[in-house]
Amino acid sequence: MRRGEYCLIAPDVVLGRDVQVFHFVNLYGCEIGDGTRIGSYVEIQRGARVGRNCKVSSHSFVCEGVEIGDEVFVGHGVNFINDKYPRAANADGTLQTDSDWTPQRTTVGRGASIGTGATILGGVSVGAGATVGAGAVVTRDVPAGATVAGNPARIIRNDERGTMKD
Amino acid sequence: MRRGEYCLIAPDVVLGRDVQVFHFVNLYGCEIGDGTRIGSYVEIQRGARVGRNCKVSSHSFVCEGVEIGDEVFVGHGVNFINDKYPRAANADGTLQTDSDWTPQRTTVGRGASIGTGATILGGVSVGAGATVGAGAVVTRDVPAGATVAGNPARIIRNDERGTMKD
Amino acid sequence: MRRGEYCLIAPDVVLGRDVQVFHFVNLYGCEIGDGTRIGSYVEIQRGARVGRNCKVSSHSFVCEGVEIGDEVFVGHGVNFINDKYPRAANADGTLQTDSDWTPQRTTVGRGASIGTGATILGGVSVGAGATVGAGAVVTRDVPAGATVAGNPARIIRNDERGTMKD
Repeated sequence: MRRGEYCLIAPDVVLGRDVQVFHFVNLYGCEIGDGTRIGSYVEIQRGARVGRNCKVSSHSFVCEGVEIGDEVFVGHGVNFINDKYPRAANADGTLQTDSDWTPQRTTVGRGASIGTGATILGGVSVGAGATVGAGAVVTRDVPAGATVAGNPARIIRNDERGTMKD
Repeated sequence: MRRGEYCLIAPDVVLGRDVQVFHFVNLYGCEIGDGTRIGSYVEIQRGARVGRNCKVSSHSFVCEGVEIGDEVFVGHGVNFINDKYPRAANADGTLQTDSDWTPQRTTVGRGASIGTGATILGGVSVGAGATVGAGAVVTRDVPAGATVAGNPARIIRNDERGTMKD
Repeated sequence: MRRGEYCLIAPDVVLGRDVQVFHFVNLYGCEIGDGTRIGSYVEIQRGARVGRNCKVSSHSFVCEGVEIGDEVFVGHGVNFINDKYPRAANADGTLQTDSDWTPQRTTVGRGASIGTGATILGGVSVGAGATVGAGAVVTRDVPAGATVAGNPARIIRNDERGTMKD
Protein backbone atom coordinates (compact mmCIF):
# COMPACT_ATOMS: atom_id res chain seq x y z
CA MET A 1 0.00 0.00 0.00
CA ARG A 2 1.05 3.54 -0.74
CA ARG A 3 -0.31 5.88 1.90
CA GLY A 4 -0.43 9.68 1.94
CA GLU A 5 -0.14 12.07 4.86
CA TYR A 6 -2.74 12.83 7.52
CA CYS A 7 -4.68 9.65 6.74
CA LEU A 8 -7.03 7.83 9.08
CA ILE A 9 -7.38 4.18 8.16
CA ALA A 10 -9.16 2.27 10.91
CA PRO A 11 -7.85 -1.17 11.86
CA ASP A 12 -11.04 -2.82 10.57
CA VAL A 13 -10.52 -1.62 6.97
CA VAL A 14 -9.83 -4.48 4.55
CA LEU A 15 -7.34 -3.30 1.94
CA GLY A 16 -6.38 -5.33 -1.14
CA ARG A 17 -2.92 -5.41 -2.68
CA ASP A 18 -1.34 -2.29 -4.20
CA VAL A 19 -3.99 0.09 -2.95
CA GLN A 20 -3.00 3.76 -3.10
CA VAL A 21 -4.46 6.10 -0.52
CA PHE A 22 -3.74 9.81 -0.91
CA HIS A 23 -3.90 12.55 1.76
CA PHE A 24 -6.47 13.53 4.43
CA VAL A 25 -8.40 10.29 3.84
CA ASN A 26 -10.88 8.83 6.33
CA LEU A 27 -11.61 5.10 5.95
CA TYR A 28 -13.41 2.91 8.49
CA GLY A 29 -15.02 -0.50 8.35
CA CYS A 30 -14.89 -0.64 4.55
CA GLU A 31 -13.34 -2.96 1.98
CA ILE A 32 -11.11 -1.72 -0.87
CA GLY A 33 -10.06 -4.02 -3.72
CA ASP A 34 -6.63 -4.62 -5.26
CA GLY A 35 -5.03 -1.80 -7.19
CA THR A 36 -7.64 0.83 -6.33
CA ARG A 37 -6.73 4.50 -5.83
CA ILE A 38 -8.41 6.62 -3.16
CA GLY A 39 -8.02 10.39 -3.62
CA SER A 40 -7.46 13.06 -1.00
CA TYR A 41 -10.28 14.09 1.39
CA VAL A 42 -12.24 10.91 0.60
CA GLU A 43 -14.41 9.35 3.30
CA ILE A 44 -15.59 5.74 2.97
CA GLN A 45 -17.90 4.42 5.64
CA ARG A 46 -18.34 1.19 7.45
CA GLY A 47 -19.94 -1.51 5.33
CA ALA A 48 -19.13 0.10 1.96
CA ARG A 49 -17.26 -1.98 -0.60
CA VAL A 50 -15.10 -0.73 -3.47
CA GLY A 51 -13.88 -3.21 -6.11
CA ARG A 52 -10.53 -3.69 -7.83
CA ASN A 53 -8.74 -1.19 -10.05
CA CYS A 54 -11.15 1.63 -9.23
CA LYS A 55 -10.42 5.32 -8.86
CA VAL A 56 -12.29 7.23 -6.17
CA SER A 57 -11.35 10.87 -6.73
CA SER A 58 -10.79 13.57 -4.16
CA HIS A 59 -13.56 15.02 -1.94
CA SER A 60 -15.90 12.07 -2.59
CA PHE A 61 -18.04 10.32 0.00
CA VAL A 62 -19.04 6.64 -0.13
CA CYS A 63 -21.53 5.66 2.53
CA GLU A 64 -22.65 2.48 4.18
CA GLY A 65 -24.77 0.35 1.88
CA VAL A 66 -22.82 1.20 -1.30
CA GLU A 67 -21.21 -1.58 -3.32
CA ILE A 68 -18.93 -0.47 -6.15
CA GLY A 69 -17.76 -3.06 -8.71
CA ASP A 70 -14.37 -3.43 -10.36
CA GLU A 71 -12.81 -0.80 -12.65
CA VAL A 72 -15.25 1.93 -11.65
CA PHE A 73 -14.34 5.61 -11.93
CA VAL A 74 -15.78 7.90 -9.24
CA GLY A 75 -15.09 11.55 -10.00
CA HIS A 76 -14.34 14.41 -7.61
CA GLY A 77 -16.88 15.56 -5.07
CA VAL A 78 -19.27 12.67 -5.70
CA ASN A 79 -21.74 11.93 -2.89
CA PHE A 80 -23.65 8.72 -2.30
CA ILE A 81 -26.76 8.62 -0.07
CA ASN A 82 -28.33 5.78 1.92
CA ASP A 83 -31.32 7.39 3.61
CA LYS A 84 -34.49 8.47 1.78
CA TYR A 85 -35.88 10.71 4.52
CA PRO A 86 -32.93 11.79 6.64
CA ARG A 87 -33.72 13.56 9.87
CA ALA A 88 -31.42 14.57 12.68
CA ALA A 89 -33.81 13.69 15.49
CA ASN A 90 -36.72 11.38 16.22
CA ALA A 91 -40.23 12.69 16.90
CA ASP A 92 -39.38 12.82 20.61
CA GLY A 93 -36.40 15.10 19.92
CA THR A 94 -33.70 12.54 20.66
CA LEU A 95 -30.83 12.32 18.18
CA GLN A 96 -31.23 9.52 15.65
CA THR A 97 -28.73 6.71 15.88
CA ASP A 98 -27.77 3.80 13.61
CA SER A 99 -30.62 1.75 15.05
CA ASP A 100 -33.25 4.22 13.85
CA TRP A 101 -32.92 3.38 10.18
CA THR A 102 -31.73 0.68 7.79
CA PRO A 103 -29.43 2.05 5.11
CA GLN A 104 -30.58 1.73 1.51
CA ARG A 105 -28.39 -0.32 -0.80
CA THR A 106 -26.76 1.16 -3.89
CA THR A 107 -24.77 -0.75 -6.48
CA VAL A 108 -22.42 0.46 -9.22
CA GLY A 109 -21.59 -2.08 -11.93
CA ARG A 110 -18.23 -2.95 -13.40
CA GLY A 111 -16.52 -0.30 -15.49
CA ALA A 112 -19.10 2.42 -14.81
CA SER A 113 -18.07 6.08 -14.62
CA ILE A 114 -19.62 8.51 -12.11
CA GLY A 115 -18.94 12.08 -13.15
CA THR A 116 -17.52 14.77 -10.90
CA GLY A 117 -20.03 16.48 -8.63
CA ALA A 118 -22.70 13.80 -9.13
CA THR A 119 -25.13 12.86 -6.36
CA ILE A 120 -26.37 9.26 -6.25
CA LEU A 121 -29.55 8.75 -4.25
CA GLY A 122 -29.97 5.68 -2.09
CA GLY A 123 -31.38 2.46 -3.44
CA VAL A 124 -30.42 2.95 -7.07
CA SER A 125 -28.43 0.66 -9.31
CA VAL A 126 -25.93 2.08 -11.81
CA GLY A 127 -25.39 -0.59 -14.45
CA ALA A 128 -22.10 -1.94 -15.79
CA GLY A 129 -20.35 0.43 -18.17
CA ALA A 130 -22.87 3.21 -17.54
CA THR A 131 -21.82 6.86 -17.51
CA VAL A 132 -23.22 9.39 -15.04
CA GLY A 133 -22.59 12.91 -16.29
CA ALA A 134 -20.86 15.55 -14.19
CA GLY A 135 -23.22 17.22 -11.75
CA ALA A 136 -26.03 14.72 -12.34
CA VAL A 137 -28.48 13.92 -9.56
CA VAL A 138 -29.34 10.24 -10.02
CA THR A 139 -32.76 9.37 -8.62
CA ARG A 140 -33.51 6.17 -10.58
CA ASP A 141 -31.68 3.12 -11.86
CA VAL A 142 -29.25 3.68 -14.71
CA PRO A 143 -29.27 0.84 -17.27
CA ALA A 144 -26.01 -0.84 -18.20
CA GLY A 145 -24.18 1.13 -20.88
CA ALA A 146 -26.48 4.15 -20.67
CA THR A 147 -25.39 7.75 -20.20
CA VAL A 148 -27.41 10.00 -17.89
CA ALA A 149 -27.14 13.71 -17.10
CA GLY A 150 -29.06 16.54 -15.44
CA ASN A 151 -31.03 17.17 -12.27
CA PRO A 152 -32.87 14.87 -12.01
CA ALA A 153 -30.75 12.70 -14.26
CA ARG A 154 -32.30 11.50 -17.55
CA ILE A 155 -30.93 9.09 -20.12
CA ILE A 156 -29.24 11.02 -22.93
CA ARG A 157 -27.72 8.01 -24.68
CA ASN A 158 -28.37 4.33 -24.39
CA ASP A 159 -25.69 2.26 -26.04
CA GLU A 160 -27.39 -1.00 -25.10
CA ARG A 161 -30.56 -0.21 -27.01
CA GLY A 162 -29.07 1.97 -29.72
CA THR A 163 -31.73 4.64 -29.26
CA MET A 164 -31.89 8.18 -27.92
CA LYS A 165 -34.26 8.66 -25.04
CA ASP A 166 -35.48 11.57 -23.02
CA MET B 1 -17.17 16.78 23.87
CA ARG B 2 -15.91 13.96 21.70
CA ARG B 3 -13.27 15.23 19.32
CA GLY B 4 -11.73 13.53 16.29
CA GLU B 5 -8.23 13.77 14.91
CA TYR B 6 -6.67 16.64 12.99
CA CYS B 7 -9.35 19.08 14.17
CA LEU B 8 -9.02 22.84 14.36
CA ILE B 9 -11.40 24.33 16.89
CA ALA B 10 -10.57 27.97 17.55
CA PRO B 11 -10.69 29.22 21.14
CA ASP B 12 -13.64 31.50 20.31
CA VAL B 13 -15.95 28.61 19.34
CA VAL B 14 -18.89 28.18 21.73
CA LEU B 15 -19.64 24.48 22.08
CA GLY B 16 -22.67 23.11 23.95
CA ARG B 17 -22.69 19.91 25.98
CA ASP B 18 -22.08 16.51 24.38
CA VAL B 19 -21.06 17.90 21.01
CA GLN B 20 -19.32 15.38 18.76
CA VAL B 21 -16.75 16.68 16.31
CA PHE B 22 -15.29 14.19 13.82
CA HIS B 23 -12.01 14.45 11.87
CA PHE B 24 -10.34 17.21 9.80
CA VAL B 25 -12.89 19.76 11.05
CA ASN B 26 -12.34 23.53 10.91
CA LEU B 27 -14.45 25.62 13.33
CA TYR B 28 -13.89 29.28 14.16
CA GLY B 29 -16.01 31.94 15.81
CA CYS B 30 -19.19 29.85 15.61
CA GLU B 31 -21.70 28.48 18.10
CA ILE B 32 -22.73 24.80 18.22
CA GLY B 33 -25.66 23.62 20.37
CA ASP B 34 -25.90 20.70 22.81
CA GLY B 35 -25.76 17.21 21.39
CA THR B 36 -24.94 18.23 17.82
CA ARG B 37 -22.68 16.11 15.60
CA ILE B 38 -20.22 17.72 13.19
CA GLY B 39 -18.90 15.39 10.47
CA SER B 40 -15.43 15.16 8.98
CA TYR B 41 -14.06 17.91 6.69
CA VAL B 42 -16.76 20.35 7.86
CA GLU B 43 -15.97 24.06 8.02
CA ILE B 44 -18.16 26.42 10.05
CA GLN B 45 -17.34 30.10 9.92
CA ARG B 46 -17.31 32.95 12.35
CA GLY B 47 -20.79 34.18 13.22
CA ALA B 48 -22.63 31.01 12.14
CA ARG B 49 -24.92 29.31 14.65
CA VAL B 50 -25.99 25.67 14.71
CA GLY B 51 -28.75 24.56 17.11
CA ARG B 52 -29.12 21.56 19.39
CA ASN B 53 -29.27 17.92 18.32
CA CYS B 54 -28.33 18.69 14.72
CA LYS B 55 -26.25 16.62 12.35
CA VAL B 56 -23.92 18.45 9.99
CA SER B 57 -22.55 15.77 7.68
CA SER B 58 -19.09 15.48 6.20
CA HIS B 59 -17.68 17.91 3.59
CA SER B 60 -20.31 20.58 4.35
CA PHE B 61 -19.67 24.30 4.66
CA VAL B 62 -21.66 26.68 6.89
CA CYS B 63 -20.78 30.32 6.37
CA GLU B 64 -21.12 33.52 8.33
CA GLY B 65 -24.72 34.74 8.44
CA VAL B 66 -26.28 31.25 8.66
CA GLU B 67 -28.50 30.38 11.59
CA ILE B 68 -29.55 26.72 11.86
CA GLY B 69 -32.31 25.76 14.31
CA ASP B 70 -32.55 22.70 16.54
CA GLU B 71 -32.80 19.12 15.22
CA VAL B 72 -31.76 20.05 11.68
CA PHE B 73 -30.15 17.52 9.37
CA VAL B 74 -27.52 18.88 6.99
CA GLY B 75 -26.38 16.23 4.48
CA HIS B 76 -22.95 15.66 2.99
CA GLY B 77 -21.31 18.24 0.78
CA VAL B 78 -23.90 20.93 1.48
CA ASN B 79 -22.80 24.51 0.81
CA PHE B 80 -24.33 27.69 2.19
CA ILE B 81 -23.69 31.09 0.58
CA ASN B 82 -23.77 34.62 1.99
CA ASP B 83 -22.82 36.83 -0.93
CA LYS B 84 -25.08 37.51 -3.93
CA TYR B 85 -22.41 38.88 -6.24
CA PRO B 86 -19.10 37.48 -5.02
CA ARG B 87 -15.97 38.95 -6.55
CA ALA B 88 -12.37 38.40 -5.63
CA ALA B 89 -11.28 41.99 -6.11
CA ASN B 90 -12.70 45.49 -6.04
CA ALA B 91 -12.90 47.68 -9.14
CA ASP B 92 -9.45 49.05 -8.34
CA GLY B 93 -7.97 45.54 -8.36
CA THR B 94 -7.41 45.28 -4.61
CA LEU B 95 -8.48 42.06 -2.93
CA GLN B 96 -11.90 42.28 -1.25
CA THR B 97 -11.93 42.04 2.51
CA ASP B 98 -14.64 41.54 5.11
CA SER B 99 -15.34 45.26 5.11
CA ASP B 100 -16.31 45.24 1.43
CA TRP B 101 -19.59 43.43 1.92
CA THR B 102 -22.25 42.58 4.48
CA PRO B 103 -23.06 38.88 4.56
CA GLN B 104 -26.61 37.88 3.71
CA ARG B 105 -28.56 36.09 6.43
CA THR B 106 -29.92 32.58 5.97
CA THR B 107 -32.13 30.72 8.42
CA VAL B 108 -33.03 27.03 8.65
CA GLY B 109 -36.03 26.19 10.85
CA ARG B 110 -36.33 23.48 13.45
CA GLY B 111 -36.35 19.90 12.24
CA ALA B 112 -35.63 20.75 8.60
CA SER B 113 -33.59 18.41 6.42
CA ILE B 114 -31.09 19.68 3.83
CA GLY B 115 -30.23 16.92 1.36
CA THR B 116 -26.74 15.89 0.38
CA GLY B 117 -25.08 18.05 -2.26
CA ALA B 118 -27.59 20.90 -1.89
CA THR B 119 -26.56 24.53 -2.38
CA ILE B 120 -28.41 27.16 -0.34
CA LEU B 121 -28.14 30.69 -1.70
CA GLY B 122 -27.77 33.62 0.64
CA GLY B 123 -30.73 35.40 2.14
CA VAL B 124 -33.20 32.53 1.97
CA SER B 125 -35.26 31.02 4.76
CA VAL B 126 -35.83 27.26 4.94
CA GLY B 127 -38.94 26.72 7.08
CA ALA B 128 -39.36 24.36 10.02
CA GLY B 129 -39.73 20.74 9.02
CA ALA B 130 -38.99 21.50 5.36
CA THR B 131 -37.08 19.04 3.18
CA VAL B 132 -34.51 20.16 0.60
CA GLY B 133 -33.87 17.35 -1.89
CA ALA B 134 -30.40 16.04 -2.62
CA GLY B 135 -28.56 18.19 -5.14
CA ALA B 136 -31.13 21.01 -5.01
CA VAL B 137 -30.05 24.60 -5.61
CA VAL B 138 -32.26 26.69 -3.33
CA THR B 139 -32.71 30.24 -4.63
CA ARG B 140 -35.96 31.20 -2.83
CA ASP B 141 -37.57 30.71 0.56
CA VAL B 142 -38.83 27.21 1.33
CA PRO B 143 -42.13 27.18 3.26
CA ALA B 144 -42.37 25.23 6.50
CA GLY B 145 -43.10 21.57 5.82
CA ALA B 146 -42.55 21.84 2.07
CA THR B 147 -40.27 19.63 -0.01
CA VAL B 148 -38.19 21.20 -2.77
CA ALA B 149 -35.91 19.67 -5.39
CA GLY B 150 -34.09 20.54 -8.62
CA ASN B 151 -31.92 23.34 -10.00
CA PRO B 152 -33.32 25.85 -9.34
CA ALA B 153 -35.30 24.17 -6.56
CA ARG B 154 -39.11 24.03 -6.94
CA ILE B 155 -41.73 22.86 -4.49
CA ILE B 156 -42.64 19.24 -5.23
CA ARG B 157 -44.77 18.69 -2.12
CA ASN B 158 -46.27 21.04 0.37
CA ASP B 159 -47.49 19.27 3.47
CA GLU B 160 -48.63 22.49 5.12
CA ARG B 161 -51.09 23.40 2.39
CA GLY B 162 -51.90 19.93 1.18
CA THR B 163 -51.43 20.94 -2.44
CA MET B 164 -48.95 20.24 -5.20
CA LYS B 165 -47.25 23.32 -6.56
CA ASP B 166 -44.80 24.02 -9.31
CA MET C 1 3.15 33.60 2.71
CA ARG C 2 0.64 32.89 5.43
CA ARG C 3 0.19 29.17 5.81
CA GLY C 4 -2.45 27.29 7.79
CA GLU C 5 -2.20 24.01 9.61
CA TYR C 6 -2.03 20.51 8.15
CA CYS C 7 -1.05 21.83 4.72
CA LEU C 8 0.78 19.91 2.04
CA ILE C 9 2.60 22.23 -0.34
CA ALA C 10 4.96 20.27 -2.58
CA PRO C 11 8.42 21.72 -3.25
CA ASP C 12 7.56 22.20 -6.94
CA VAL C 13 4.71 24.65 -6.24
CA VAL C 14 5.43 28.18 -7.47
CA LEU C 15 3.91 30.66 -5.03
CA GLY C 16 3.76 34.42 -5.66
CA ARG C 17 4.13 37.07 -2.98
CA ASP C 18 1.64 37.41 -0.12
CA VAL C 19 -0.21 34.20 -0.91
CA GLN C 20 -2.46 32.98 1.90
CA VAL C 21 -3.03 29.26 2.23
CA PHE C 22 -5.56 28.08 4.80
CA HIS C 23 -5.84 24.63 6.41
CA PHE C 24 -5.82 21.04 5.09
CA VAL C 25 -4.68 22.26 1.67
CA ASN C 26 -3.04 20.00 -0.93
CA LEU C 27 -0.98 21.78 -3.62
CA TYR C 28 1.44 20.10 -6.02
CA GLY C 29 3.11 21.20 -9.24
CA CYS C 30 0.90 24.26 -9.60
CA GLU C 31 1.48 28.01 -9.84
CA ILE C 32 -0.32 30.54 -7.61
CA GLY C 33 -0.12 34.29 -8.28
CA ASP C 34 0.63 37.18 -5.90
CA GLY C 35 -1.93 37.98 -3.25
CA THR C 36 -4.17 34.98 -3.91
CA ARG C 37 -6.06 33.22 -1.10
CA ILE C 38 -6.49 29.44 -1.07
CA GLY C 39 -9.22 28.16 1.28
CA SER C 40 -9.25 25.07 3.45
CA TYR C 41 -9.51 21.57 1.90
CA VAL C 42 -8.54 22.92 -1.54
CA GLU C 43 -6.59 20.68 -3.91
CA ILE C 44 -4.76 22.16 -6.88
CA GLN C 45 -3.05 19.77 -9.24
CA ARG C 46 0.16 19.71 -11.19
CA GLY C 47 0.08 22.00 -14.21
CA ALA C 48 -2.81 24.19 -13.00
CA ARG C 49 -2.27 27.95 -12.84
CA VAL C 50 -4.11 30.46 -10.66
CA GLY C 51 -3.59 34.19 -11.26
CA ARG C 52 -3.06 37.13 -8.92
CA ASN C 53 -5.50 38.38 -6.31
CA CYS C 54 -7.84 35.42 -6.70
CA LYS C 55 -9.88 33.67 -4.05
CA VAL C 56 -10.22 29.91 -4.28
CA SER C 57 -12.74 28.98 -1.58
CA SER C 58 -12.78 25.93 0.62
CA HIS C 59 -13.44 22.38 -0.65
CA SER C 60 -12.69 23.33 -4.28
CA PHE C 61 -10.67 21.28 -6.74
CA VAL C 62 -8.59 22.73 -9.59
CA CYS C 63 -7.19 20.10 -11.92
CA GLU C 64 -4.38 19.88 -14.42
CA GLY C 65 -5.13 21.83 -17.57
CA VAL C 66 -6.95 24.69 -15.82
CA GLU C 67 -5.70 28.25 -16.20
CA ILE C 68 -7.37 30.86 -13.99
CA GLY C 69 -6.76 34.56 -14.69
CA ASP C 70 -6.25 37.41 -12.24
CA GLU C 71 -8.90 38.56 -9.75
CA VAL C 72 -11.08 35.48 -10.19
CA PHE C 73 -13.45 34.32 -7.47
CA VAL C 74 -13.89 30.55 -7.14
CA GLY C 75 -16.64 29.68 -4.66
CA HIS C 76 -16.83 26.77 -2.23
CA GLY C 77 -16.99 23.19 -3.45
CA VAL C 78 -16.29 24.08 -7.08
CA ASN C 79 -14.96 21.25 -9.24
CA PHE C 80 -13.08 21.54 -12.52
CA ILE C 81 -12.78 18.60 -14.94
CA ASN C 82 -10.19 17.74 -17.58
CA ASP C 83 -11.37 14.45 -19.02
CA LYS C 84 -14.43 14.05 -21.26
CA TYR C 85 -14.81 10.29 -20.91
CA PRO C 86 -13.13 9.34 -17.65
CA ARG C 87 -12.63 5.65 -17.00
CA ALA C 88 -10.74 3.92 -14.24
CA ALA C 89 -9.27 1.20 -16.42
CA ASN C 90 -8.31 0.54 -20.02
CA ALA C 91 -10.09 -2.05 -22.15
CA ASP C 92 -7.57 -4.66 -20.99
CA GLY C 93 -8.46 -4.00 -17.35
CA THR C 94 -5.24 -2.23 -16.41
CA LEU C 95 -5.56 0.97 -14.41
CA GLN C 96 -5.33 4.12 -16.51
CA THR C 97 -2.31 6.31 -15.94
CA ASP C 98 -1.37 9.84 -16.95
CA SER C 99 -0.08 8.54 -20.28
CA ASP C 100 -3.52 7.23 -21.26
CA TRP C 101 -5.09 10.61 -21.84
CA THR C 102 -4.29 14.24 -22.58
CA PRO C 103 -6.04 16.60 -20.19
CA GLN C 104 -8.48 19.08 -21.70
CA ARG C 105 -7.67 22.74 -21.23
CA THR C 106 -10.01 25.11 -19.39
CA THR C 107 -9.55 28.85 -19.04
CA VAL C 108 -11.21 31.37 -16.73
CA GLY C 109 -10.85 35.03 -17.70
CA ARG C 110 -9.91 37.96 -15.52
CA GLY C 111 -12.39 39.02 -12.88
CA ALA C 112 -14.80 36.13 -13.46
CA SER C 113 -16.83 34.65 -10.60
CA ILE C 114 -17.52 30.92 -10.32
CA GLY C 115 -20.38 30.29 -7.90
CA THR C 116 -20.31 27.83 -5.03
CA GLY C 117 -21.01 24.24 -5.95
CA ALA C 118 -20.47 24.80 -9.68
CA THR C 119 -19.01 22.10 -11.92
CA ILE C 120 -16.92 23.24 -14.90
CA LEU C 121 -16.50 20.62 -17.62
CA GLY C 122 -13.20 20.24 -19.40
CA GLY C 123 -12.34 22.25 -22.49
CA VAL C 124 -14.58 25.24 -21.79
CA SER C 125 -13.65 28.88 -21.62
CA VAL C 126 -15.25 31.18 -19.03
CA GLY C 127 -14.86 34.73 -20.30
CA ALA C 128 -13.52 37.76 -18.44
CA GLY C 129 -15.98 39.19 -15.94
CA ALA C 130 -18.45 36.33 -16.46
CA THR C 131 -20.55 35.00 -13.60
CA VAL C 132 -21.29 31.30 -13.13
CA GLY C 133 -24.26 30.83 -10.82
CA ALA C 134 -24.12 28.66 -7.74
CA GLY C 135 -24.64 25.00 -8.52
CA ALA C 136 -24.35 25.51 -12.28
CA VAL C 137 -22.98 22.71 -14.47
CA VAL C 138 -21.04 24.49 -17.23
CA THR C 139 -20.84 22.41 -20.42
CA ARG C 140 -20.14 25.16 -22.98
CA ASP C 141 -18.14 28.35 -23.26
CA VAL C 142 -19.40 31.30 -21.23
CA PRO C 143 -19.03 34.66 -23.06
CA ALA C 144 -17.22 37.50 -21.35
CA GLY C 145 -19.56 39.39 -19.03
CA ALA C 146 -22.37 36.83 -19.29
CA THR C 147 -24.16 35.20 -16.37
CA VAL C 148 -25.04 31.50 -16.59
CA ALA C 149 -27.00 29.24 -14.26
CA GLY C 150 -28.65 25.82 -14.14
CA ASN C 151 -27.84 22.24 -15.11
CA PRO C 152 -26.79 22.38 -17.87
CA ALA C 153 -25.90 26.04 -17.50
CA ARG C 154 -27.67 28.53 -19.80
CA ILE C 155 -27.11 32.23 -20.25
CA ILE C 156 -29.54 34.20 -18.08
CA ARG C 157 -27.98 37.61 -18.63
CA ASN C 158 -25.51 38.88 -21.15
CA ASP C 159 -24.11 42.25 -20.21
CA GLU C 160 -21.86 42.39 -23.25
CA ARG C 161 -24.74 42.23 -25.71
CA GLY C 162 -27.39 43.89 -23.59
CA THR C 163 -29.92 41.16 -24.33
CA MET C 164 -31.64 38.42 -22.37
CA LYS C 165 -31.06 34.96 -23.74
CA ASP C 166 -32.30 31.53 -22.90
